[in-house]
Amino acid sequence: MTRTDVNTLGEFGLINRLTKNIALRNSSSVKGVGDDAAIIRNGTMLTVVSTDFLVEGIHFDLAYTPLKHLGYKAVAVNVSDIAAMNAVCKQITVSIAFSNRFSVEAIEELYAGIHTACKLYNIDLVGGDTTSSPKGLYISVTAIGQVAEGRAVYRNGAKAGDILCVSGHLGSAYLGLQLLEREKQVYLAAPTAQPQLEGYDEVVGAILKPEARVDMIQRFADEGVLPTAMMDISDGLASEIFHICQQSNTGALVEEAHVPILESAYELAALTFKIDPITCALHGGEDYELLFTVRPEDLNKIRTMQSVYIIGEIRPADEGIQMRTKGGNLHDLKAQGWVHQF
Amino acid sequence: MTRTDVNTLGEFGLINRLTKNIALRNSSSVKGVGDDAAIIRNGTMLTVVSTDFLVEGIHFDLAYTPLKHLGYKAVAVNVSDIAAMNAVCKQITVSIAFSNRFSVEAIEELYAGIHTACKLYNIDLVGGDTTSSPKGLYISVTAIGQVAEGRAVYRNGAKAGDILCVSGHLGSAYLGLQLLEREKQVYLAAPTAQPQLEGYDEVVGAILKPEARVDMIQRFADEGVLPTAMMDISDGLASEIFHICQQSNTGALVEEAHVPILESAYELAALTFKIDPITCALHGGEDYELLFTVRPEDLNKIRTMQSVYIIGEIRPADEGIQMRTKGGNLHDLKAQGWVHQF
Repeated sequence: MTRTDVNTLGEFGLINRLTKNIALRNSSSVKGVGDDAAIIRNGTMLTVVSTDFLVEGIHFDLAYTPLKHLGYKAVAVNVSDIAAMNAVCKQITVSIAFSNRFSVEAIEELYAGIHTACKLYNIDLVGGDTTSSPKGLYISVTAIGQVAEGRAVYRNGAKAGDILCVSGHLGSAYLGLQLLEREKQVYLAAPTAQPQLEGYDEVVGAILKPEARVDMIQRFADEGVLPTAMMDISDGLASEIFHICQQSNTGALVEEAHVPILESAYELAALTFKIDPITCALHGGEDYELLFTVRPEDLNKIRTMQSVYIIGEIRPADEGIQMRTKGGNLHDLKAQGWVHQF
Repeated sequence: MTRTDVNTLGEFGLINRLTKNIALRNSSSVKGVGDDAAIIRNGTMLTVVSTDFLVEGIHFDLAYTPLKHLGYKAVAVNVSDIAAMNAVCKQITVSIAFSNRFSVEAIEELYAGIHTACKLYNIDLVGGDTTSSPKGLYISVTAIGQVAEGRAVYRNGAKAGDILCVSGHLGSAYLGLQLLEREKQVYLAAPTAQPQLEGYDEVVGAILKPEARVDMIQRFADEGVLPTAMMDISDGLASEIFHICQQSNTGALVEEAHVPILESAYELAALTFKIDPITCALHGGEDYELLFTVRPEDLNKIRTMQSVYIIGEIRPADEGIQMRTKGGNLHDLKAQGWVHQF
């Protein structure tokens, strides 16, 4: 494979190469890449803005993360934040800093993933910044979306009696990461070993190629459901329930038996890694499913909605945040997020 | 001075400390820090978005850059990009990644500068991301502003005959940087030496505490002037003139005698560093003045406008981009931006 040093192109040459052939998809994207700033026309819609920083050695390990997947994920996790406000992402800006260890082709791979995600989510890449870094790869994405006045969903709107739901399986990404870490150690000890990942497509896919649940936002609109509170699950279910309860000034009761866990993830946790699967679902990060609450009167709409799992309910604040185990016992839930060591 | 390790607070504790007491100043800031995304109501105004990445060891050197100044500058340079669209910055998001070399107090200093700039420019800090980095300090700022439909100014609107203007002195930031670099070398050779910076407040201020020329945007509105093209001067005058001419498909003629250079910068260049002062103005970066073009019929409004310097005019494309020297000779201008080595 060709290795072109970035210095042969320079900053402007590289930007041209990464942003050529960008066709704007959304009529709200008035001006994209190529000026001091992008311009967006939202009409009377509210603008929704979120930003995420992905750092090599902290958020991703290039030993087992293909650059194309990384680019895709960098977009998806930001789209997920916009979806968590019940909004639709329309534009992103992408800033990267990288050392001379990365060739032009490597950066193009990263952007191939970014462009793939933009196409799938119908998003325009409208700006960014490209610079060098003394060491490592740093990716900062800002996502910009739209929501109609009165349709934004915050974390603070849950009320006692509301139904607590998630949009899909939890714990998969954490188990996928454990698997990749294990295979990395095997590889480091014996570089000729082949990674043993057969049968684990779902959990490996969950960590390497998460999807933002934009389909849920469409479903809420179609069914006339407005969640009372919502956020995306990036730090683990328990931590996110704490955020919603703290901001809404409520408690919550979670039914362990109703927390959805993939069969392959369950087996991997219990048999291979000897961890309680519910621990992975509660405290593993990066699932990017939506956690949301709906009013009791929306129960019938939610009960039959595709990929909605009712996992409990919102309770008065004085009842605290509890989980009823499969055995019927009540335990206090502990928030124990995804901690990046500083 | 106290040194608190960031791990004693954790990510959420640190974010709370950095964002407490944020009062939103703009009615367009519907929801700020604390949810999955911020929400902005722009009514029927267009939204303007720009982003910049500042990397330790590439864009700044903490040996002579106080963290508070750095935070201030990180905001100002983004506000400058928004101003360069003839727009007004209303919101920013700030993402930082930093190693454990930085204490809580150090990060608070950085944010003190960010908050100072937000207050001065009447901007709301509405979001961001805070994470660790294996090494160094990385700051990614996204600025969001407003402009009325039909009032945005791009780089591509200049026409032959338009008047070419800048909003202030050029080359100062470059000379300030040379001075700081010289004093750093002196310090490294003899750590007891005191920096010799007296009499150079203007050039040192230009590099350490640049201001976005938001006053010009107000002046254009007050005087009913709509520039035909505009950008901010971050890579040096010559490089920016090339951008405007390329995108507008024109040439340009710059009068060397009319390019404004501070007296103290002029002397520092000519006497101390033995560089031609015009070279600093043409190719030194980071002045953050505005370069803009206006129609000939606006000459009288521009001629008397505060801090406007007419430096030449836009010419047909086939005449190229030239500078008439003080001696009356015509030279082709070369674009030679601020190059960060990858």
